[in-house]
Amino acid sequence: MQTPKKIAITGSGLVGSLLAIYLQKKGHQVDVFDRRPDIRTMEFSGRSINLAMSTRGWKALETIGIDAPIKEIAIPMDKRAIHTPNKPVYFQYYGKEGEAIYSISRGILNKKMIDLAEEAGVNFVFNSKVWDVSLSDAIIYTGETEKGEWEAHPYDIVFGADGAFSRIRHKMQRRSMFNYSQHFLKTGYKELSIPANPDGTHKLNDNSLHIWPRGEFMLIALPNLDGSFTCTLFMPIEGEISFEGLDTEEKLEAFFIKHFEDAVDVIPDLIKDFFKNPTSSLVTIKCEPWSYWDKVALIGDAAHAIVPFYGQGMNAGFEDITVLNELIEKYGDDWHTIFNEYEASRKPNTDAIAELSYRNFVEMSSKTADENFLLRKKIEKHFSDKHPEKWMPLYSRVTFSEHPYSEALRVGDFQKEIMDEIMKMENIKEKWDSEEIENAILEKLSK
Amino acid sequence: MQTPKKIAITGSGLVGSLLAIYLQKKGHQVDVFDRRPDIRTMEFSGRSINLAMSTRGWKALETIGIDAPIKEIAIPMDKRAIHTPNKPVYFQYYGKEGEAIYSISRGILNKKMIDLAEEAGVNFVFNSKVWDVSLSDAIIYTGETEKGEWEAHPYDIVFGADGAFSRIRHKMQRRSMFNYSQHFLKTGYKELSIPANPDGTHKLNDNSLHIWPRGEFMLIALPNLDGSFTCTLFMPIEGEISFEGLDTEEKLEAFFIKHFEDAVDVIPDLIKDFFKNPTSSLVTIKCEPWSYWDKVALIGDAAHAIVPFYGQGMNAGFEDITVLNELIEKYGDDWHTIFNEYEASRKPNTDAIAELSYRNFVEMSSKTADENFLLRKKIEKHFSDKHPEKWMPLYSRVTFSEHPYSEALRVGDFQKEIMDEIMKMENIKEKWDSEEIENAILEKLSK
Repeated sequence: MQTPKKIAITGSGLVGSLLAIYLQKKGHQVDVFDRRPDIRTMEFSGRSINLAMSTRGWKALETIGIDAPIKEIAIPMDKRAIHTPNKPVYFQYYGKEGEAIYSISRGILNKKMIDLAEEAGVNFVFNSKVWDVSLSDAIIYTGETEKGEWEAHPYDIVFGADGAFSRIRHKMQRRSMFNYSQHFLKTGYKELSIPANPDGTHKLNDNSLHIWPRGEFMLIALPNLDGSFTCTLFMPIEGEISFEGLDTEEKLEAFFIKHFEDAVDVIPDLIKDFFKNPTSSLVTIKCEPWSYWDKVALIGDAAHAIVPFYGQGMNAGFEDITVLNELIEKYGDDWHTIFNEYEASRKPNTDAIAELSYRNFVEMSSKTADENFLLRKKIEKHFSDKHPEKWMPLYSRVTFSEHPYSEALRVGDFQKEIMDEIMKMENIKEKWDSEEIENAILEKLSK
Repeated sequence: MQTPKKIAITGSGLVGSLLAIYLQKKGHQVDVFDRRPDIRTMEFSGRSINLAMSTRGWKALETIGIDAPIKEIAIPMDKRAIHTPNKPVYFQYYGKEGEAIYSISRGILNKKMIDLAEEAGVNFVFNSKVWDVSLSDAIIYTGETEKGEWEAHPYDIVFGADGAFSRIRHKMQRRSMFNYSQHFLKTGYKELSIPANPDGTHKLNDNSLHIWPRGEFMLIALPNLDGSFTCTLFMPIEGEISFEGLDTEEKLEAFFIKHFEDAVDVIPDLIKDFFKNPTSSLVTIKCEPWSYWDKVALIGDAAHAIVPFYGQGMNAGFEDITVLNELIEKYGDDWHTIFNEYEASRKPNTDAIAELSYRNFVEMSSKTADENFLLRKKIEKHFSDKHPEKWMPLYSRVTFSEHPYSEALRVGDFQKEIMDEIMKMENIKEKWDSEEIENAILEKLSK
C-alpha cells in the first residue's frame, strides 16, 4: 500500500481522467485541472477523429474495472471497408474472427470518463489555466492570463496529461539536457459527417472502418452509436491538391464528385462542414526525460504525441497507465524509481509506435488501394491462420496484442523482408495459397 | 538600393553584431537589443571555447571590409598537435601550406565587433530583455521580468540572433507547423587555462590546436594573443568517467595525472578553475521555418545551433549573413522572397554541418589517437597534393572552401567509401604512397 499523496493532474482528457481514477482508487487525493470548461457542459465537435479502442486500451479499462460501461458506447469494427473508384467495396478483416477495434466518439468517451472519475472521488477544477509548474517542489500556478496574477497550488506529485502542447512539458523543455522534437506532417485533416438514415440506421456498413484511399489524400469514416459516421478527410494543407486549394464551393464539390463519388451522396452538409470546421494539423512529438525526480511526470500525448494512422494514440496513453500501475505495485512509495522505470520501459515503445503510425499513413492512403498490397495481406493472413504461433501480422501485434510496440516494429520489419521476397516469386498471384509458398515462408522464418 | 527600414536585432553576439554592420551599411536603421550588459564592460570568461575562424567566417568579414582589424586579434593554427601518452607530440597539418584556421577569443572578438558596429552607426540597447515578439507586425516587447510591465517597440523587420535558446524562435515554436528539435549530447565541457610564460611566450607550440584525445573524453587548447591558451575539457556529464564523478580535488588531480600527464604541469589553476567554472552542455538545434513573412527571421545559432567539434558554429552563422547579403542584392525590397530563399539555401547546409559536427566529436576524441586514421589522412593528403582538382579532403572542403556544407557531407561520404576500400588493401602501411594506391584511388573515383 502506498502512502496517500496529494496529486495534481493537468488535463481532463482521456489519459488524465483514467489516470485520476487509478490514483484515486489507490487512496491518493487527486485534483484534475483543465483550462477548458467541463466537456460535459459543451457541444463537442468539429475537430476530432473518432477513436479506435483496441486491446491495450481495453486492458487499462479492465484492470480498474470500467470496461463494461465503455463497451456500451463503442461499436466494433472488424474490418476495413475499402472504397475504390468503379469497384465494389472491398472488405479486409483486421484480425481473426471475433477480433475488432472499437469506434468511440472522443467527446462521449471523455464525458463518461469524467463521470466515472468523479464517482471514484476525483476532484475536477475546470476553467483553470495552469501556466507554470515548479518542478523541484511540485507547485502548479494557475491564473486568468499568463501575464496576470497567479495562484500557487502545492502538491506532492504533478502529472502532465495536458496533451501534445503540454504546458508542463513546456516548462521542462526550458531546462538543460531536455531532448525534444516536434514534427508536423504537411498533411492536415478536417472533420465531416455522414448522418444517420431517418430510421436511425447507418448509411454504410456499421461494423467497418471505411476508407477511401486516394494516394496523397484519403477519407475515412467511423461509425457512431446514433447511426451517423464521423468522417475525416486527410489532405495536404498547401499545394496542388490541398485544403488551401479547395477555397470555393464549386471547387470543393467538383473535387468530391471526382474523387469520392460514392461518398458525396451521404455527406449532405459537406459544404457547410468543410468551410466551418477547422483544418487541423498532425504532429509527432518526442521528448526525454519524462519526469523530474519524484515530483513531476508526463503521460500520454504530453510525453509522446503521434499521428493517428494506426489508431494507437489513446491506446498508447492508456498503456502508459497500465505500466505505471504495475510499477506502483512493485515499488510502492519510491516514486523516483517508479518514474525512472516508467520512462525506461515506455520510451522505446512510444518511439516505435510513433514510427509505425507515421508509416501507416502511406499504407492507408496508398497501399490499401493497391492489389499487390492486398494480396500480400492475404498471404500473410493465410499463413498466420495456419501457423498462428509462427506469424502474428504486424497490425495484429500492434492492435490485438500486448506485446511491446518496439517488438512489433522489429518483427514487422523482419516479416516485411520475408514478404518482399515472397512477392517476387513467379506466378505469386496464382499460387499464393499453395504449399510451396507456405514452405518458402517457413524456410525463411527458420533462418 | 533598398528602402531604408527600421530593423531590430535581438542578441549582440558575433552574428548579431556582424549582421547589424551589414544592414546599417545598407542604409537601414539598426537597433541591437541584448538582455546582458555591454560585454565591453565585463570580465568575459568561464564558459567559452575559443573560436576557430576559417574561410567562411573571413569571407563575411572581408565582404564588409572588417577582416583586417579582426586578423590583428587572431592567431593562425595550421595544424593539430596531438598529445598521446608516452609518445612525442604528433603534428597533423590541416590543409595545404599557408592554410590555417585562426584562434580568436570569443570575448575579445565580440567586443571588437560591437565597437565596429557602433562606428558604423548601429545603436545598441544593453540590459534590455526581449520577452515576446508579435510576428505579424514585428513588434518586440521588453521588460524587467517576464511577468512584469512590458514596453512595445515597433519595427519593420526583426532578426532573432539571440542564440541557441532564442526567445524569438521560442515564440515561433508555439505556432502550428513549426518543426523543431533540440538534442543534447551526454558530453559536456568545462573551460580551463594554460597561462603564458613569465616572458609572455606560449608554453606550447602557439600555431597549433592542441588535442589530448582519450576516447570518451578529450582536452583541447587554443592559443591566445597574450601567450595563454584557452583549454576545454570535453567529458560525459554523468557516469563512470564524468564531470559528476570528479567531485573531489584528489580525484581530479589523480585523473589529470593519469590521463593528461604532460598537461598537468601547464595548468596551474586546474583545481580552482575546475570547481569554479560551470560545466556547460552541448546542444544541436534544428527548426523550420526560419522566418515569418517579411517580418521576422532567425539567424545563426537561433536557427541552427551545432556542437563545436568542427569549429564551424560562428563560421556557419557568418555564412548565413553572406547568403542573406547576396539575396538582398538580388531581391531588393522583396524581403518575403529574401527570407524564403535564404532559408531554402541555408537549411540543407546547416543541417549538413550539424551532422558533420556531431560526427567530428568521434573523430577528434578517438580517431586522432588511432594510427590507421592518421595513415588514412596521410594517404588522402598525398593523393590530394598530387591531384588537387580530383580530391579535396572533407576537412578542407568544410574549412578552407566556400563549397556548400551539404556538398561536403555528400562528397565526404563518397570519399569515405573509397578510403574504406583502400585501407583494406594488403600492406597498405608500406605502400601508402605508391603508384599502385594512387591508381586504385583514381580508378574508384572514375566509377
